[in-house]
Amino acid sequence: MSGLKRTTEKNLMVFSGRAHPELSEEVAELLGSGLVPTAAYDFANSEIYVRFEESVRGCDAFVIQSHTAPVNEWIMEHLIMVDALKRASAKRITVVMPFYGYARQDKKHRGREPISARLMADLFKTAGADRLIAVDLHTAQIQGFFDGPVDHLMALPILSEYVASKYGGEQLAVVSPDAGRIKVAEQWSSRLGGAPLAFIHKTRDIHRPNESVANRVVGQVEGRICVLVDDMIDTGGTIVKAADALMNDGAAGVVIAATHAILSDPAVDRLKNCPATEVVVTNTLPIPADRHFDKLTVLSIAPLISRAIREVFEDGSVTSLFDGQA
Amino acid sequence: MSGLKRTTEKNLMVFSGRAHPELSEEVAELLGSGLVPTAAYDFANSEIYVRFEESVRGCDAFVIQSHTAPVNEWIMEHLIMVDALKRASAKRITVVMPFYGYARQDKKHRGREPISARLMADLFKTAGADRLIAVDLHTAQIQGFFDGPVDHLMALPILSEYVASKYGGEQLAVVSPDAGRIKVAEQWSSRLGGAPLAFIHKTRDIHRPNESVANRVVGQVEGRICVLVDDMIDTGGTIVKAADALMNDGAAGVVIAATHAILSDPAVDRLKNCPATEVVVTNTLPIPADRHFDKLTVLSIAPLISRAIREVFEDGSVTSLFDGQA
Amino acid sequence: MSGLKRTTEKNLMVFSGRAHPELSEEVAELLGSGLVPTAAYDFANSEIYVRFEESVRGCDAFVIQSHTAPVNEWIMEHLIMVDALKRASAKRITVVMPFYGYARQDKKHRGREPISARLMADLFKTAGADRLIAVDLHTAQIQGFFDGPVDHLMALPILSEYVASKYGGEQLAVVSPDAGRIKVAEQWSSRLGGAPLAFIHKTRDIHRPNESVANRVVGQVEGRICVLVDDMIDTGGTIVKAADALMNDGAAGVVIAATHAILSDPAVDRLKNCPATEVVVTNTLPIPADRHFDKLTVLSIAPLISRAIREVFEDGSVTSLFDGQA
Amino acid sequence: MSGLKRTTEKNLMVFSGRAHPELSEEVAELLGSGLVPTAAYDFANSEIYVRFEESVRGCDAFVIQSHTAPVNEWIMEHLIMVDALKRASAKRITVVMPFYGYARQDKKHRGREPISARLMADLFKTAGADRLIAVDLHTAQIQGFFDGPVDHLMALPILSEYVASKYGGEQLAVVSPDAGRIKVAEQWSSRLGGAPLAFIHKTRDIHRPNESVANRVVGQVEGRICVLVDDMIDTGGTIVKAADALMNDGAAGVVIAATHAILSDPAVDRLKNCPATEVVVTNTLPIPADRHFDKLTVLSIAPLISRAIREVFEDGSVTSLFDGQA
Amino acid sequence: MSGLKRTTEKNLMVFSGRAHPELSEEVAELLGSGLVPTAAYDFANSEIYVRFEESVRGCDAFVIQSHTAPVNEWIMEHLIMVDALKRASAKRITVVMPFYGYARQDKKHRGREPISARLMADLFKTAGADRLIAVDLHTAQIQGFFDGPVDHLMALPILSEYVASKYGGEQLAVVSPDAGRIKVAEQWSSRLGGAPLAFIHKTRDIHRPNESVANRVVGQVEGRICVLVDDMIDTGGTIVKAADALMNDGAAGVVIAATHAILSDPAVDRLKNCPATEVVVTNTLPIPADRHFDKLTVLSIAPLISRAIREVFEDGSVTSLFDGQA
Amino acid sequence: MSGLKRTTEKNLMVFSGRAHPELSEEVAELLGSGLVPTAAYDFANSEIYVRFEESVRGCDAFVIQSHTAPVNEWIMEHLIMVDALKRASAKRITVVMPFYGYARQDKKHRGREPISARLMADLFKTAGADRLIAVDLHTAQIQGFFDGPVDHLMALPILSEYVASKYGGEQLAVVSPDAGRIKVAEQWSSRLGGAPLAFIHKTRDIHRPNESVANRVVGQVEGRICVLVDDMIDTGGTIVKAADALMNDGAAGVVIAATHAILSDPAVDRLKNCPATEVVVTNTLPIPADRHFDKLTVLSIAPLISRAIREVFEDGSVTSLFDGQA
Repeated sequence: MSGLKRTTEKNLMVFSGRAHPELSEEVAELLGSGLVPTAAYDFANSEIYVRFEESVRGCDAFVIQSHTAPVNEWIMEHLIMVDALKRASAKRITVVMPFYGYARQDKKHRGREPISARLMADLFKTAGADRLIAVDLHTAQIQGFFDGPVDHLMALPILSEYVASKYGGEQLAVVSPDAGRIKVAEQWSSRLGGAPLAFIHKTRDIHRPNESVANRVVGQVEGRICVLVDDMIDTGGTIVKAADALMNDGAAGVVIAATHAILSDPAVDRLKNCPATEVVVTNTLPIPADRHFDKLTVLSIAPLISRAIREVFEDGSVTSLFDGQA
Repeated sequence: MSGLKRTTEKNLMVFSGRAHPELSEEVAELLGSGLVPTAAYDFANSEIYVRFEESVRGCDAFVIQSHTAPVNEWIMEHLIMVDALKRASAKRITVVMPFYGYARQDKKHRGREPISARLMADLFKTAGADRLIAVDLHTAQIQGFFDGPVDHLMALPILSEYVASKYGGEQLAVVSPDAGRIKVAEQWSSRLGGAPLAFIHKTRDIHRPNESVANRVVGQVEGRICVLVDDMIDTGGTIVKAADALMNDGAAGVVIAATHAILSDPAVDRLKNCPATEVVVTNTLPIPADRHFDKLTVLSIAPLISRAIREVFEDGSVTSLFDGQA
Repeated sequence: MSGLKRTTEKNLMVFSGRAHPELSEEVAELLGSGLVPTAAYDFANSEIYVRFEESVRGCDAFVIQSHTAPVNEWIMEHLIMVDALKRASAKRITVVMPFYGYARQDKKHRGREPISARLMADLFKTAGADRLIAVDLHTAQIQGFFDGPVDHLMALPILSEYVASKYGGEQLAVVSPDAGRIKVAEQWSSRLGGAPLAFIHKTRDIHRPNESVANRVVGQVEGRICVLVDDMIDTGGTIVKAADALMNDGAAGVVIAATHAILSDPAVDRLKNCPATEVVVTNTLPIPADRHFDKLTVLSIAPLISRAIREVFEDGSVTSLFDGQA
Repeated sequence: MSGLKRTTEKNLMVFSGRAHPELSEEVAELLGSGLVPTAAYDFANSEIYVRFEESVRGCDAFVIQSHTAPVNEWIMEHLIMVDALKRASAKRITVVMPFYGYARQDKKHRGREPISARLMADLFKTAGADRLIAVDLHTAQIQGFFDGPVDHLMALPILSEYVASKYGGEQLAVVSPDAGRIKVAEQWSSRLGGAPLAFIHKTRDIHRPNESVANRVVGQVEGRICVLVDDMIDTGGTIVKAADALMNDGAAGVVIAATHAILSDPAVDRLKNCPATEVVVTNTLPIPADRHFDKLTVLSIAPLISRAIREVFEDGSVTSLFDGQA
Repeated sequence: MSGLKRTTEKNLMVFSGRAHPELSEEVAELLGSGLVPTAAYDFANSEIYVRFEESVRGCDAFVIQSHTAPVNEWIMEHLIMVDALKRASAKRITVVMPFYGYARQDKKHRGREPISARLMADLFKTAGADRLIAVDLHTAQIQGFFDGPVDHLMALPILSEYVASKYGGEQLAVVSPDAGRIKVAEQWSSRLGGAPLAFIHKTRDIHRPNESVANRVVGQVEGRICVLVDDMIDTGGTIVKAADALMNDGAAGVVIAATHAILSDPAVDRLKNCPATEVVVTNTLPIPADRHFDKLTVLSIAPLISRAIREVFEDGSVTSLFDGQA
Repeated sequence: MSGLKRTTEKNLMVFSGRAHPELSEEVAELLGSGLVPTAAYDFANSEIYVRFEESVRGCDAFVIQSHTAPVNEWIMEHLIMVDALKRASAKRITVVMPFYGYARQDKKHRGREPISARLMADLFKTAGADRLIAVDLHTAQIQGFFDGPVDHLMALPILSEYVASKYGGEQLAVVSPDAGRIKVAEQWSSRLGGAPLAFIHKTRDIHRPNESVANRVVGQVEGRICVLVDDMIDTGGTIVKAADALMNDGAAGVVIAATHAILSDPAVDRLKNCPATEVVVTNTLPIPADRHFDKLTVLSIAPLISRAIREVFEDGSVTSLFDGQA
């Protein structure tokens, strides 16, 4: 018989773009793998250059980039890193997106719009991604946009455990700031002992989706601490108006909880000045020091991501991390 | 100069599978095109045979099949028709799905599930579909599952116009039977003069998504005629329990409106015996004579589909049929 | 150096659809692997639901489904299982088709027909199949329809060994019931000591390929036990008329041998009442108890399939199972 | 409204490689289109250079090349022409293969063989072919190897009309030289008034498929003029041995008919010296002057190809050229 | 016959991103088509939103965006526009890149780098681009990165005609600032009456490709006006050092000519203070008012692009614009 | 838990086409793997047949073929070998091209030409190649033509080390015979202690790229031994005229060095009679005995290729073989 035989080894390597290095470092430390040293900078005309400073041949690559502003810059860096890994013979490339850019453009709200969330999935596939890991996609259907395995991680257990331990003794209500996200509120409700549900009925101007118009509370909130839940806080307009509406309807207090702290201007000012007493988020996105404020609580998502990477690497079960719900 | 020049003509041809020929005939009649004569039958072992009895070379083909039970049979026939058209040199193939099969499996509800709605999009792409036309997809994100243009038609104007003309003088409320579909109820509300919204908070057993468990009305419905809206009625369990809950909460009456009348057993019995006074649906799916009952009103979707096909064929605007909302 | 190293393990997992579980169980038992527990049922509107009840991440998956009636139902289930495996991160997916549905539509017999056998290959590729294992494809060219490795298993050694051991002492002739399948009869002839060949010259009505018209024996069969061989018995019309023609031409007896026992109505009645004294088939397709009859002999294909799966899993040689002929 | 409108024209352009220019010229003349002037030559190291000397932008291109020896040279030229057309913005590219190279390797005869006929289909697809036109494929399943429309033309009407007009008054038999091609003989039989069928039962050495071993006539040929039919004559070994066997069995004479006259050495010598009185072929392949011999009759395939091209260009029906049989 | 026939019209529509609207407007005005009104803006978190305000169904779309800084922003907008056009049923989508971003990363200069220029081609293909038009690609091989037609336009005639008319009476030399671009200098030389060639031999630090190290003039420049030519001027370091080296070697003067005026800082300062007396460029990239300076001459590329678009739309010849050289 | 676990082994297997078996044997010997026994021959009509005589299931295949004349024959054999490996279940297929055919057609020199170098990359991808290894591509951009990893090996260290050790004591100049290849000369210069650079300024007739027209030396060569460097020597016209021009300009001597010795007629005669005293090449292409001549020195490329294969198989670093430059 011809040939040369060897046993096969696999090698986990973790890579980070420049968008949110603190999170990547925390993940790599928890894994014990370290981050692969990588040269990355912008040329004078803003084109990005990337090069890995160690051989990556045959590795099981996990490439972490969170799509914070400037979103297009960091997505392009992410794509370029994947291309470089593909051409350098990485064996398998898993794209890790703690926050998935353009997730909100997941359908045509009107004719002649793009479906940018699908486009992103296809761009990463084209660049060479074999699989995705993401946290709390804006809609679960985005899993179906990628042609391959997607591990969809949920911050809900982390956030709800914190809220339950701190506010579990109060009379709670769970409130969705938006008619479209009551499903998530239902999951919160069941984790908070069946607390009653409510939602804010508002109309968005379809031409400027960031701005809401009118707000009416649907459901009973009087005398209750309202846990106002959403997947992300961008400019904060929607959620702050919701908090106001809840207080107007007689709520005893408001606590805001969300996975993704985008905190675009003027979110920080709005949140500081709103009636909510605490704002609980995770660090899927970087929060610069000047955007921290007293009532902001940031929980780390790194343990969840590192556990998921380990399960993927070791052919374990990511589903098991969520009792079968992922 | 070498060559032979000719002006180009395009030729619209409409094809129908065997699932719901009445609808296809109505569409073809409104277009004035007729249906292309097609041989289709099952072999002894249940394999399907299809052949077109006219040349289809170079045509702009619209292939209509509604995915009613037996769903897999009709989807496969639909795929085989597309394959035959591709191999017979149709110029462009538009798949028309008044009801899109497997739309409810649009995400992984739990680990190790398929995303069958994405799979269907890919199967049709593989068979040779260039574009899709569908009515009221279970979630709008399904548009993003297909790699090509999707014209997403809405039955809402047809249904809401009927309800408005018949019940417009009453005190109305719009109710979603499910936390996940309040967005649609919002659209109904704005078409019914801003009628107040409510929804039913219920828990589904994740292992048997057809069955609901508990029902609580969130929102004010007392003394109002409740328009209970959904995209489809399958076994009717959810919507009938919602109707009961609304009456228990003091509603003055219930009218049910839905686009897709699947009406699997025991939907007809449930609907007959429920407190709703009228059930308004469209004919996106065939409703056999033995499933008709007194309070059932069926509106035809054929005018909408035929107008959409004409716009597509003539390079007009489908969006314009919905004031920019598609 | 960055990274975490581990040696690699591979894990064979066998999955079964609902079409023919007895065969899958026999295969899994011979392999010693067991079948992966799988939830599979139909929703009220006949859509199929599938979920694997163990983690399948990183496994080498073999998914067995035989395309018996209702063919479209079982093919769709097969596709959905593959999609679920792909999205659950199976490492490699081998589709095992003891009987390949639509294999007879392997070319356009007339213009504007589909080539459904190619379509099936493409649908499985799209769903995520990396490779196929099939038994006695209707034509060997179907191997070329799939873009990837196909292990084409042959039941001929099993069937011919049985016939040789039982009828080896007789004066035999090998007969093809159809001009298009004489190649297979040649292989039988060489395995039966060079028994002379004959075939039935008949005309099919091209519009209804299940029905034949006229039958003439070409070749010498007088005084011989005729082994009438085919790849499949569907309604049995062709083969039973062939048996009659052989007896009319003075054959001493007829034994029928075929791999795939489709046995659509009225095959059982026809076979019972025909002059053949024995009908030898395999269990590539399920044969319900009410279709068994006295002169039917069923040989198990499970040992062959399990050996092929083992060779594939262990990077052995499938070709070696057939002395280089596969 | 923005934009500039124009009516659309389509422009048929016919291109020819260097393998068989006489046939291409005859086709172009019948179409009245002329051939597009094309520079094509070999560089010193045998790489091929091709350039079109007129603009081809937007044209409906038909690229004719017959895969005669040196086969690989002409296939590569064919591929390069398609690539150049794609990059020069031809609107649609139809590859015309009067003889489809590697058609005989349409399956794995043994393990670890290629399926070169499928590979060729994929190579042309990759280069940019939208559709194929071919004459008498070795097996009809090859249509299914190409992912797109294939117009499969049959020389049978041309050949059989000639034979019928010349030998129609005789007692005829139709004979297949090979068990695998009796289907074709059946079609001849029905076109020659139901002449009886026979075939030669022979064993090939699987390692050297060009050489046959033993020959036995199956069927009645005594006293008849045998029309010995095949799709191609390569070295002529099989067909000449068949002719000998027929004469030995008492045939009154032999006429050979085949579509593709490959005529590799020593075919011409064998045919000259064999008992057949006439060898009827078409010009799908070039037959150099030194391979012509007295009893060789060459019928032109150009009228058929030019009619097929015209139907394709004008969105007519190719099927209609064959009474629905293509 | 079934169906509805119509003659076909095609409709040219021109679209512009936000990177360089002045150029797009000039092109659209020369074409007489106008630009399609388009809503485009950034959301608070920097994601881009695009929507076309007229129906684009069936149009022949030309989408102009020049990849100026911030490059990633404008490439992403370009991709999103293509996705929106694809999903809105544009018939054909031509991406027009007056400057092709990332063209300089057209190979791996070292191991583990990306090939970003290929990646860009693939991203546009994935988004839905059917064809590309670009001006003076950094290397001509980039044409081969796109899987489809590329019309490669050359600014050389525009630039060299200007230089010839102004400096034609002088003693000229043509100088390449870099060993890798002497081919372009050769073309200039032949357009300037065979002026002698020279180049600057320098070493780049491979880690920082924007900075050069040593400069030596190879060739004779003494007493001549040197036309220093390149495809682009980025920070200007290379070209300014080349100008200095030429003066040191006794050149009578220096004129700089380049197609793409990137002019990243500190290019403007460097060019102002360098010995060159004129800097001739085109407007493929926007040059803000504060980057204009006295000796800068900007020639418009819009006439060339509009002529190319017209040829593409009308199935004319782009090659003819360059005497067969494109 | 279901399933069967095993540790994974990988198996390197080396395959060789018939173009240059001596090189493959040398590589396999250095690796210690042997070559896999392979049956390969031409059928009578010049179609190629290939079959591997050992099981290749699961192997890590390296398929070596150098694209010497007849180029199309050997490329097709290479493609067919890849197809056979894919269908026989090789796990990974690396195509090794010591010389990459059609590399010079890497762009459209004029309109309506193919880009054959890209076409070759796509053909190999389609056949089933996962990765490429090539030596000294005509332009480095060709790496970007393949959609996957390309290991680009450089013969420069081998050639320059030989030249340095033999001529290091002389006054050297490095000369490019062509304006387009001075980059390579720069690399030689830095390896030969910074020897001064020169190039030949010549005009090619664009219609016949093998022939040059005029030659002028740009740079100082007087009194120096000129090392005239190129990637390949085809007919030798260019390089021999360059040698003449150098001697005319006062060079002290000429040594020619090139990687690929195509040596098409009349290269050998030209080189024998030219003023160069030594011609140094590698054996990437076979050099038949009758093309050897006294001043020809052939260095073996096999050690480099075998080291690269070993690094690829063992997940080592190919880049490290070139100090990061590949």
